[in-house]
Amino acid sequence: MHLFDESHFRAISMIQSVDALPFRLDRGPFGNLPPTLEWIGGADGFLRLLDQTRLPHEVCYVDCRDVETVWEAIKMLRVRGAPAIGVAAAYGVCIGTRTAASASVDAFARELRRVAEYLIGARPTAVNLAWAVRRIVGVFDAGKFAAAADAWRALLNESHRMAQEDVDTCRRIGEAGAQLIPDGGAVLTHCNAGALATVAYGTALAAMYVAKQQGKRFQVFADETRPLFQGARLTAYELLAAGMDVTVLCDNAAAMLMRERRVHVVIVGADRIARNGDTANKIGTFPLALAAKHHGVPFYVAAPRSTFDAALANGDSIPIEQRSAEEVLSPGGLRVAATGARAYNPAFDVTPAALIRGIVTENGILEPVTEDVIREFLR
Amino acid sequence: MHLFDESHFRAISMIQSVDALPFRLDRGPFGNLPPTLEWIGGADGFLRLLDQTRLPHEVCYVDCRDVETVWEAIKMLRVRGAPAIGVAAAYGVCIGTRTAASASVDAFARELRRVAEYLIGARPTAVNLAWAVRRIVGVFDAGKFAAAADAWRALLNESHRMAQEDVDTCRRIGEAGAQLIPDGGAVLTHCNAGALATVAYGTALAAMYVAKQQGKRFQVFADETRPLFQGARLTAYELLAAGMDVTVLCDNAAAMLMRERRVHVVIVGADRIARNGDTANKIGTFPLALAAKHHGVPFYVAAPRSTFDAALANGDSIPIEQRSAEEVLSPGGLRVAATGARAYNPAFDVTPAALIRGIVTENGILEPVTEDVIREFLR
Repeated sequence: MHLFDESHFRAISMIQSVDALPFRLDRGPFGNLPPTLEWIGGADGFLRLLDQTRLPHEVCYVDCRDVETVWEAIKMLRVRGAPAIGVAAAYGVCIGTRTAASASVDAFARELRRVAEYLIGARPTAVNLAWAVRRIVGVFDAGKFAAAADAWRALLNESHRMAQEDVDTCRRIGEAGAQLIPDGGAVLTHCNAGALATVAYGTALAAMYVAKQQGKRFQVFADETRPLFQGARLTAYELLAAGMDVTVLCDNAAAMLMRERRVHVVIVGADRIARNGDTANKIGTFPLALAAKHHGVPFYVAAPRSTFDAALANGDSIPIEQRSAEEVLSPGGLRVAATGARAYNPAFDVTPAALIRGIVTENGILEPVTEDVIREFLR
Repeated sequence: MHLFDESHFRAISMIQSVDALPFRLDRGPFGNLPPTLEWIGGADGFLRLLDQTRLPHEVCYVDCRDVETVWEAIKMLRVRGAPAIGVAAAYGVCIGTRTAASASVDAFARELRRVAEYLIGARPTAVNLAWAVRRIVGVFDAGKFAAAADAWRALLNESHRMAQEDVDTCRRIGEAGAQLIPDGGAVLTHCNAGALATVAYGTALAAMYVAKQQGKRFQVFADETRPLFQGARLTAYELLAAGMDVTVLCDNAAAMLMRERRVHVVIVGADRIARNGDTANKIGTFPLALAAKHHGVPFYVAAPRSTFDAALANGDSIPIEQRSAEEVLSPGGLRVAATGARAYNPAFDVTPAALIRGIVTENGILEPVTEDVIREFLR
């Protein structure tokens, strides 16, 4: 899959003959933030990802011209957040199958399935990754294409559609969630479920963006989110860029903050929601929900429909990604732990539905969080 | 308070005439660990503190020859852990009043009170600090000394006694606590309530040292303990030095570990215990207790009698030290958070007595944790 081999250029020229117009994404009011992800150019274009491992102190991009670069960016969390991973993976399928667009439809189909499985394997917990890749494969399966180049162009168009849908979905989540934030109050969030975790707006943070647009004033508390500090780095970065008042705290201080009655609502994102409402999200979400329950603070999850996995009865069957010991032992790359220590480093935990007051979706707030309510929503 | 001024040497020579024998501390089986604190020399000696901000990668000492150095070491957590702070402060009183030992008894008394208040102000939450300093002042008040030099020598002897008592007390806490650790099981702890937090043995970790001496095999999980990583740095360091199996985790992963049923008991230290059993300890203890309650894992606090503050009805009146924003925003000194973010950084939280199964003391385990049981113990 080298960029400059001959078959690649042949494929590009065939695809360009179909449609060479570049796609224009409307990110709404997020023009002041560097875009999370962006398709640059037309059929011969590439996926530009904001390298979130370098934020907030450096704004760097990874230009993905081969699928390995997309896979690595997902694996290493250069792009992260369930919705953003989904869209990046969709574009990754396009990049990974571009060379095969000059082959037969059968050969294209084989390559498509290989690339799809490869990308799905990058991270096991976020269901949006598999959902997005399968949606792209589904376009091929439904299309009965006469030529691989036509198929490929349809996959790219579908990826563009997903990117724009993500913006629209997140804006609607924000419109539903904004009502949860009391004027003059304070909201606590964990990790980054913001514009940087999606194409724009975010999920949990969408509520804050919309509430601010509505003229509400409120304080945001952002858990720093060990081990990778997405809260301190990313959530603080994007909310400060939007002119909000952000206070960072160590994850373990959230319970004390609630004890002091300084939090009025908790809103977090999700990586996968089982059909009973049990929710996998960034490690540290579950103890936050326990603290919220103890203090009577309402705890909400914000997520689009694509985060629900109706195939899973409950949270016990959600696969939990274990990440490297170094993330724990060497925070920020700096060796801190004593030599010889082992590490326990699950990337996610599961919050039982009973601790969740409601789930904020693009179709409103699901409340209470029960299997019946979720079944009705997914229908 | 310069080391080399004339009055200092005059004072030393007067004190030495009383007793020049150096004190020999018996630290039990902790000869393989660098000592947390040690009085070096006789009456002209100094307090040598292990600089715990440099551990585990550097073993450095701070030699305290003036009280400002002791104050700074307490403030900056070079020496930390409620019992160790107490003993260091006792020696600090001796160092701070040594020059006055050549003055009149009245002048010595004035200087003693000034130095005592100064040291107590270094950190507000740990009650042992004030307890230890007042015990030393009490020796002076009770002594009716004819000469300041005699008084000073009595204070140093009392400090030595406190250091040795701390070792003995902690060993007895360990003997009581060891029964809580099941052979073949796993214990979780937070922060460092170990040999490094005391003169030897520790409080929570004393249970592990004694259990190991009894031949039990068990796994230790150590919360890393943001913001200063005392778990990853200090607890892992001293338990590994003792040959134990230590796994470090981010504080926010403890709930998930319990959900996986991999923790059989939680034992933590304490900085101050109100008379109803509400316990101030390192930030992150309270959410750990909530997670333990949720999962039915027994949660124990280990602390000597000097950590109880009978003057406080409950945890609401325990003063909570707020520390610098930089500890949160720049973990390990490395700037991580987005520029412009504020920080919330309480050093401690308060765990309600209702979440604590028992308190392990030098006189056995207090269980259940009620005002009556504590009153009986303190009598």
